Amino acid sequence: MRIALDAMGGDRGPEVLVAGAVQAVAASPATTVVLLGDRQRLAAALGRAGAPAGDRIEIVHASEVIGMDEAPFEAIRRKPDATVVRGFALLREGRVDAVVSAGNSGATMAAAVRCLGRLAGISRPGIAGVYPTLKGHVVMMDVGANVDCRPAHLVQFGVMGCAFAEIVFHRQRPRVGLLSIGEEGGKGNTLVKKTHELLQNSGLNYIGNVEGRDIFSGEVDVIVCDGFVGNVCLKVSEGLAEVILTMLGEEIRKSLPARIGYRLAGRAFARFRKRVDYAEYGGAPLLGLNGTGVICHGRSNAKAIANAIGVAEELVAHRVNDRISAMLASAQERSPAMDGAAA
Amino acid sequence: MRIALDAMGGDRGPEVLVAGAVQAVAASPATTVVLLGDRQRLAAALGRAGAPAGDRIEIVHASEVIGMDEAPFEAIRRKPDATVVRGFALLREGRVDAVVSAGNSGATMAAAVRCLGRLAGISRPGIAGVYPTLKGHVVMMDVGANVDCRPAHLVQFGVMGCAFAEIVFHRQRPRVGLLSIGEEGGKGNTLVKKTHELLQNSGLNYIGNVEGRDIFSGEVDVIVCDGFVGNVCLKVSEGLAEVILTMLGEEIRKSLPARIGYRLAGRAFARFRKRVDYAEYGGAPLLGLNGTGVICHGRSNAKAIANAIGVAEELVAHRVNDRISAMLASAQERSPAMDGAAA
Repeated sequence: MRIALDAMGGDRGPEVLVAGAVQAVAASPATTVVLLGDRQRLAAALGRAGAPAGDRIEIVHASEVIGMDEAPFEAIRRKPDATVVRGFALLREGRVDAVVSAGNSGATMAAAVRCLGRLAGISRPGIAGVYPTLKGHVVMMDVGANVDCRPAHLVQFGVMGCAFAEIVFHRQRPRVGLLSIGEEGGKGNTLVKKTHELLQNSGLNYIGNVEGRDIFSGEVDVIVCDGFVGNVCLKVSEGLAEVILTMLGEEIRKSLPARIGYRLAGRAFARFRKRVDYAEYGGAPLLGLNGTGVICHGRSNAKAIANAIGVAEELVAHRVNDRISAMLASAQERSPAMDGAAA
Repeated sequence: MRIALDAMGGDRGPEVLVAGAVQAVAASPATTVVLLGDRQRLAAALGRAGAPAGDRIEIVHASEVIGMDEAPFEAIRRKPDATVVRGFALLREGRVDAVVSAGNSGATMAAAVRCLGRLAGISRPGIAGVYPTLKGHVVMMDVGANVDCRPAHLVQFGVMGCAFAEIVFHRQRPRVGLLSIGEEGGKGNTLVKKTHELLQNSGLNYIGNVEGRDIFSGEVDVIVCDGFVGNVCLKVSEGLAEVILTMLGEEIRKSLPARIGYRLAGRAFARFRKRVDYAEYGGAPLLGLNGTGVICHGRSNAKAIANAIGVAEELVAHRVNDRISAMLASAQERSPAMDGAAA
């Protein structure tokens, strides 16, 4: 298994990304990580990490990097030797099995679509986001790639989310919910109402509408929504989790007994932080492409990068795309309206 | 000032609602609360609360109640003597100044629209939701009344949110943000991109797109979005805040030192809970109507009801609807596209 890592992307610089690669190969004896970026800088970073380039960590030189704020399509056109562009080119050539990047996620998606193309039957590749819940995890799709969607696209997100949940969460017949503003099928906007009808006849284990509060309950495995709503949810959740911890910290710092109490409860807080830490969830896969890509938060630490590489391995090893194609064929056989091209 | 309270709605029954009314009149010497519902039950509840019906707490008998799960429009048609329907009828007749309800929010909105009608120039009345932030509060509109919107509707939500923020948050020239998935004006779905253009020329203090995480930062006073996205955000936030406290509680209960620590930090936790408690924010106003209504969470406690009555008083006292009309006229003069009828 060979995983390419964009070793220049993200907010924290190559050191952290290289450290993630070192952790990943240590965890997984059959994996080789191909670092993409400036050969000299990466060789130096590997040296400092005490793991010189060798058998299972390789460097492929790429002279350009796409910045976090660059416009995706323009950037991949202007920078043919950018790390992510090189990564997906290697994937297309069969020289790696997947690409992982913590860089500009729009540019990563754009490069993936251009180099790999869409999986047959998929109208809109998307980004799947993983949330912690009271009982495990839930995957939401799409969380940002497709802001204006048709019902058939959302059904395809459901199929892709199921394939992911089967492979990464080890769920049999994952429960699929449609994000709406009431549990009854008649509630929601026009897009959701039409999608509800399609999902009922999709062959998926569709449990109906779910509300925003149900994301965290653990009663659903896959949540379907358009990429605008999904991205807003993701960022609301990140923002709120941060602000709750900030407010709690402010209140605790106001008194000595509270500060002592916080010390005593330190391990409980650490365990809690681990449960809600995005780094535990290993990035967000790009699904619906002729190949496998995983994007990571720009602020990812080494553990998050290593976990993302692990998710990429699992998706490749369990042939996520074959699973998507099989479920999609079954859904489209039941209802031609699920074909995005026809919808 | 006379405020009608639907004293039968909500999940907790009349006792809690009556207790809220008692708190409200104690806090505000010029206020009379008119309790709507079963006269005998309400008189008994008042007696038990030690505040028999009299000068400043009146009862108006209403024989019907709309259940939390009833379909709004059908319910208000089938139950002409329902508490909320009677409330808005009293408002139309000038016998009360505002209506507060913790009952079925869809039915409350439907009764309000039918009895009062829309404010001139407003295409879509909506529900404003208040969130705590690191620095105070923010109002988001719409949080559930209008699931499919046009750009002009969102601009009107911005105007209404500003009037609310001026009166209730005491903000001069409230900062208005458009909820999107990137800060640049070009980011978002089709609705958001078109709304961005209109808001730039609205005369409002428009600061541009904001992201989900910015809701809680305190850097914006009014957040504009369609009612589907707004309702999802509200419920994601409620669900996540609960799950974070649940997870933290689970971790703390696992060890004795953590339990002791939690005791020591008890007051800090209590202050934190007060900061994020929806009961502090006094309900969600219905804006854009010929009159004033405030809806409360079905689970509202007495304090939440009293605070909602306080918000209703403030909105009436400061003539929120005159303020909305003035800002709307100014915005529509600048750009005829802001007229919802024309858009």
